[in-house]
Amino acid sequence: MKYAIVFGGMSYEHEISIVSAIALKDVLKRELLFIFCDAAREFYLIPASKMKSKLFSSGEYRKEAKLTLKNGGFYQKALMKEKKIDFDVAVNLVHGGDGEDGKLAALFTFFGIPFIGPRIEASVLSFNKLYTKWYAAELGVKTVAYEVLHKGEYNVSTPCPFIIKPLRLGSSIGVSIVKEERELSYALDVAYEFDDAVLIEPFIEGVREYNLAGCKAGDNYLFSIVEEPHKEEFLDFDKKYLDFSRTQQVLAADISDALKKRLHEAFQKIYNTHFEGALIRCDFFVIDDEIYLNEINPIPGSYANYLFEDFSTVMDTLAKHLPKERKIPVDYTYIDSIQKAKGK
Amino acid sequence: MKYAIVFGGMSYEHEISIVSAIALKDVLKRELLFIFCDAAREFYLIPASKMKSKLFSSGEYRKEAKLTLKNGGFYQKALMKEKKIDFDVAVNLVHGGDGEDGKLAALFTFFGIPFIGPRIEASVLSFNKLYTKWYAAELGVKTVAYEVLHKGEYNVSTPCPFIIKPLRLGSSIGVSIVKEERELSYALDVAYEFDDAVLIEPFIEGVREYNLAGCKAGDNYLFSIVEEPHKEEFLDFDKKYLDFSRTQQVLAADISDALKKRLHEAFQKIYNTHFEGALIRCDFFVIDDEIYLNEINPIPGSYANYLFEDFSTVMDTLAKHLPKERKIPVDYTYIDSIQKAKGK
Repeated sequence: MKYAIVFGGMSYEHEISIVSAIALKDVLKRELLFIFCDAAREFYLIPASKMKSKLFSSGEYRKEAKLTLKNGGFYQKALMKEKKIDFDVAVNLVHGGDGEDGKLAALFTFFGIPFIGPRIEASVLSFNKLYTKWYAAELGVKTVAYEVLHKGEYNVSTPCPFIIKPLRLGSSIGVSIVKEERELSYALDVAYEFDDAVLIEPFIEGVREYNLAGCKAGDNYLFSIVEEPHKEEFLDFDKKYLDFSRTQQVLAADISDALKKRLHEAFQKIYNTHFEGALIRCDFFVIDDEIYLNEINPIPGSYANYLFEDFSTVMDTLAKHLPKERKIPVDYTYIDSIQKAKGK
Repeated sequence: MKYAIVFGGMSYEHEISIVSAIALKDVLKRELLFIFCDAAREFYLIPASKMKSKLFSSGEYRKEAKLTLKNGGFYQKALMKEKKIDFDVAVNLVHGGDGEDGKLAALFTFFGIPFIGPRIEASVLSFNKLYTKWYAAELGVKTVAYEVLHKGEYNVSTPCPFIIKPLRLGSSIGVSIVKEERELSYALDVAYEFDDAVLIEPFIEGVREYNLAGCKAGDNYLFSIVEEPHKEEFLDFDKKYLDFSRTQQVLAADISDALKKRLHEAFQKIYNTHFEGALIRCDFFVIDDEIYLNEINPIPGSYANYLFEDFSTVMDTLAKHLPKERKIPVDYTYIDSIQKAKGK
């Protein structure tokens, strides 16, 4: 299976995506293609040997071959005509905007490129934290209480301490914990810099958190181990940033089989059938022995490779079970019948 | 204001979109560009003078200039280099799949093309009828009771008569009214041909229905008249099809100012702020003097031109108030700081 790792994007998580792509290079032990989407949304083919963060921060990537995305794939200009870039499956590794908000899913689907990553609906449901709440409620998966505020609103009903998150970002960007009333307006202003709406949830000190990644291939789920992330109060951007470069397998959390089974069940409810084609990581809380969905990462940092024993095989199995787009017949029945009725 | 009308698409409503585009040609009295997306998702520039349905059903459109969609616009091959097609604003007129499911919104946004039409989130919220229910509930706008069934499920709780709709289609395709139990399995099979999930709602005989179209330009709403559609039990595909070619202004429904005001208020709740950039039509029911949202048409047939006194001006005003994409600075702060920390 030959992959094209697509990374970068016009996103607050652009740099994280570069780090994530470099991590994948070390983990997927095989020949890989790297396609970089720069902040101006131009695509470049980056040789694996040049995959170093400096290539991007220095702007040197602009010397590499420029690609055009169109029907059927990515194309490179050649002498007389264009050359199609040869790969089996694209891997959407653009974190945040462009990658997780549905744009790349739409582009790949529209242009008929097989890809690993969330489809449009799944992207939108997980990118917007309010929609995730609706979705979880429909599935019968608990989430913590919440309120949504819009730019200009500073009146919070949730009692302190609470956590403020821009409605549509990941990677802890713009997130604050407010412990005292006087911290509120600054924290809200920070969040409003990134989005016109914010989600506010009670902050639960010392809550147990469990991360579980996985995907579905045919009728079978492929699960990672369950990790209990070691953390301070919460992972700020710098910490999460380093987190995206993880490639060492971690130890499984010390939890009962019963809890593990319940986490698997919650994951399956969330995954099925919306997230088909994606390898996602669900972050859960356990409060008073009840499971709560904290968030869905439809494109987790470095694809959560460090949670899997055999990450390569998981990706290959998923790649063989990508959802197919429903082909719609266009046969002009109605136009023909109207033309006949009109005698034309 | 120079428009490029983009129509067609890989959609069950492909033909409807052609009819819709031809209708717009007569209504927007000015020079227009027409860009056809065929069922294979190739784009063609169609001269306005050739905009007849037969051009498409005959396949003759393939003789017209082929276009490539990429960063900044649509491009046409010319002798030495590509020529950018010149227009101010694209009008998304692809009904159903590709147009209303978020794909075109994603393409236009990604490639930086100003466009009239729903953005990605708005597309997904209105295309999936279950999400519309969640959305309306959040806004405090009533909708009728419902249940969702998935392919293979035939056990309906809603008592007869009820209406079955594929979860993600418009234009009454695959829709049935089930009056007796024995009609159920056939009706479900029909709907499952178009989608893996269906929405079931009680069918309310003789319910009053009101359609209201509009958009927001800056802080101002531009509303159409309220229409009470004349209909039989419901508009089947053939009727709706003809409906898409409407260009004659219709008479306003004979309703009280109070009801009109309440319909406007419900519309504003739904529109703001998700649908900015789009001209939408909301179809409401009034039951026991309560307003219910039936559906949101984010790209109504022929843009509901027949509901407006001065459709051209409405479009031009909207076109001047399109939402801007938030520009995200990518400055490589984090990569630079890590490189410094590493002493590289």
